[in-house]
Amino acid sequence: MKKILVIGANGQIGKIVVELLHNQDRPVVAMVRSKQQAETLENMGVEVVVGDLETDFEHAFKDCDKVVFSAGSGGNTGYDKTLLIDLWAAKKAVDYSLKVGIQHFVMVSGLGAQDPDEFESEIKPYLVAKYFADQYLLSSGLNYTILRPGLLTNDKGQGLITTTRSTSTNDLFISREDVAKSIEYCINYGGASNQIVELYHGNEVISTALTASN
Amino acid sequence: MKKILVIGANGQIGKIVVELLHNQDRPVVAMVRSKQQAETLENMGVEVVVGDLETDFEHAFKDCDKVVFSAGSGGNTGYDKTLLIDLWAAKKAVDYSLKVGIQHFVMVSGLGAQDPDEFESEIKPYLVAKYFADQYLLSSGLNYTILRPGLLTNDKGQGLITTTRSTSTNDLFISREDVAKSIEYCINYGGASNQIVELYHGNEVISTALTASN
Repeated sequence: MKKILVIGANGQIGKIVVELLHNQDRPVVAMVRSKQQAETLENMGVEVVVGDLETDFEHAFKDCDKVVFSAGSGGNTGYDKTLLIDLWAAKKAVDYSLKVGIQHFVMVSGLGAQDPDEFESEIKPYLVAKYFADQYLLSSGLNYTILRPGLLTNDKGQGLITTTRSTSTNDLFISREDVAKSIEYCINYGGASNQIVELYHGNEVISTALTASN
Repeated sequence: MKKILVIGANGQIGKIVVELLHNQDRPVVAMVRSKQQAETLENMGVEVVVGDLETDFEHAFKDCDKVVFSAGSGGNTGYDKTLLIDLWAAKKAVDYSLKVGIQHFVMVSGLGAQDPDEFESEIKPYLVAKYFADQYLLSSGLNYTILRPGLLTNDKGQGLITTTRSTSTNDLFISREDVAKSIEYCINYGGASNQIVELYHGNEVISTALTASN
């Protein structure tokens, strides 16, 4: 059975995705940057591959047929890392996926990546990187799902979301756990295949929200 | 007669391009960021348009049919500006060009933008931005010329170049003046149409080098 590669498995969302899939006995491979990060996951019984997003990480794709890209350089590094990780490593992940014949590539994008000019946000440079990463995946020919969660919280996930953007900023939040559950649904059931979907907390169960978003 | 828009006309290469075209009585429009920058050029009799690459600069394209994109955020700003100027503004310039029907778009790219991994250079984040800007132009359908000059010097231009990369690093230099002369040739004579060309100092006159590089 082919495996599911989670790139950015030490990230806040990636961690939950790995846990969810592992607890379901799904064949997940967690890609992390260092051996130290690997240990915690290995102690949980998770298969881990160490890979550096700034060099070559093609080995991580061996025996995989699904990929989650939830890696990000994060807010504490410079925009040089945004270019190298959020954009260039994402591009390489798509290239490797094409080489090994990945069947589903789930990209964790962000609200605003559809048009970095739309919000004139202070994270606009980041959104430019995400825009081009998304476009590269879109035009790759891979079966893609691009998820664009709203403002992330650490609230407990309810398993209830909506893919419709509200006009009220109060409704643009979503918990990382619900994002992770949405990713899990896409991976396990082929949800939101070849779709770009925004994600917010809402009133629909994930399986309904992501199937209905055609 | 339609005009030639030079974006980044206050840059080191852009300035020379404007001067060359203006001295030949070509209908050049120099786009600069501020009124102060505009004054110097206006005193030379050059038509100037003030435009901010970080917002909307579509007005600059009015009555133009050729574009030179030689803008760059430069080495003294952060990589946030690389994302906003070298990548996002370049993308917008291509979009505006499609809207107004630009006949030739000359992009000043750089050595290494063909593959940011090739040299493992310290300017790799910059090369990632240039890679995606070039790709966006390439897939736009516009008649393009992508020029990738080697290491830039302020030497006097000789009008002699080569488009063949030498294995010796000593031969990877080119003066900004020769880059500007190459741009001028592309604009005036349709040289290197729909081509990606590397530029180094060499032994060929520009008209031969750029016509022969098919």
